[in-house]
Amino acid sequence: MKISILGTGMVGQVIAEKMMQLGHVTFMGTRNAAETIARQEPNRMTGISFADWHASHTDVQLVNFEDLPTDTDIWINASSGQASLEVLKKVTEKKLSKGVLLDLANPLNFSNGMPPSLAVCNTDSLAETIQRAFPSVKVVKSLNTMNCTIMMDPSLVPGDHQVFVCGDHDGAKRVVVDLLREVGWIEGNILDLGGLVAARGTEMMLPVWLQIYGKLGTGNFNFNVVRG
Amino acid sequence: MKISILGTGMVGQVIAEKMMQLGHVTFMGTRNAAETIARQEPNRMTGISFADWHASHTDVQLVNFEDLPTDTDIWINASSGQASLEVLKKVTEKKLSKGVLLDLANPLNFSNGMPPSLAVCNTDSLAETIQRAFPSVKVVKSLNTMNCTIMMDPSLVPGDHQVFVCGDHDGAKRVVVDLLREVGWIEGNILDLGGLVAARGTEMMLPVWLQIYGKLGTGNFNFNVVRG
Repeated sequence: MKISILGTGMVGQVIAEKMMQLGHVTFMGTRNAAETIARQEPNRMTGISFADWHASHTDVQLVNFEDLPTDTDIWINASSGQASLEVLKKVTEKKLSKGVLLDLANPLNFSNGMPPSLAVCNTDSLAETIQRAFPSVKVVKSLNTMNCTIMMDPSLVPGDHQVFVCGDHDGAKRVVVDLLREVGWIEGNILDLGGLVAARGTEMMLPVWLQIYGKLGTGNFNFNVVRG
Repeated sequence: MKISILGTGMVGQVIAEKMMQLGHVTFMGTRNAAETIARQEPNRMTGISFADWHASHTDVQLVNFEDLPTDTDIWINASSGQASLEVLKKVTEKKLSKGVLLDLANPLNFSNGMPPSLAVCNTDSLAETIQRAFPSVKVVKSLNTMNCTIMMDPSLVPGDHQVFVCGDHDGAKRVVVDLLREVGWIEGNILDLGGLVAARGTEMMLPVWLQIYGKLGTGNFNFNVVRG
């Protein structure tokens, strides 16, 4: 498949690497590819500069958002939640609507310090905001409730733990679920919560996720829904 | 200990029964005790009327909010989130501040239909609202992320799964943690998330809790934070 990842941060990098390993033709979109590829400052999370990361991942094709391929099968929104609408606009609704949009961003707002609040929540969500802004795009929300290494390798956490999926387009959800399986999520741990309205709930898990992260001192955990 | 439960719904009933079993002197507060005790209509959740429930739990002392004992050790707010401030006002800050207030309510707002939204969230929480309204009260938030049968009997869910605790008063948190232990929560599954600000995160778990409830068709589950 052809995968276009929006965003070049740690999340985008981890996803790109996995997509390449799985044999997908993988693109990464950024505002200014020449500038991004020249970036020497270490990534705050990984400690590695984008230039160095890309030097060891030359098969990942870095282009400007506007130049991402029209025949992309899955668009993956790995941009920061606050930037997502602007980034998606650069890609254009026309292009996005030909594939499936997997939105894994969270609308975290750090502008008032810690803990971050959500820029949108409760009676709305980032995923629904995107769906309203681009009505012809098939938006699927998933993978936003764990850190990116676990997203792409659920075996990092032992035993059962879940990934949530929601969206208003069943066919698009199936495409995303297939990708989740390919990445290593087992059938019973992929929880389809229904329509995109459920993204309110999964995005609202971020505050407690961040608190648990603070408590444990690591983001290397996930939630297991244990039934009685 | 002397326990005063605010609220006579299913949550209050399950807690009262457990507190009695543990040998605590247990009071239940309501607006109008005579009216509540005469209630013949079946509870929407349990199918049992309050009159019938109380007939088999006569040791639980039902009184008006205003008549709850001044020497209560733990006040348990099991009223609906929307009514909590008004209920607590009836008890009075003076009385509440002599013990510890365990707040397990959620600010669910069903007035716009399903799914319910939260009346307060994101940059505030019900627990913080209560703390601001009654500054001298030692508010501890806990037990609001699971159904009431699991609250009072965590063994209903197999293996590890957690209860969160937060609050600005360490001594009060210790009192609540002791009660949690007494109820059956093991030490390693009681997660202290710090100050009361963390209640934002735990109250914001409610939307996803409700979605999972809808998906599984049962509220008989809890979250286990699995570490990698």
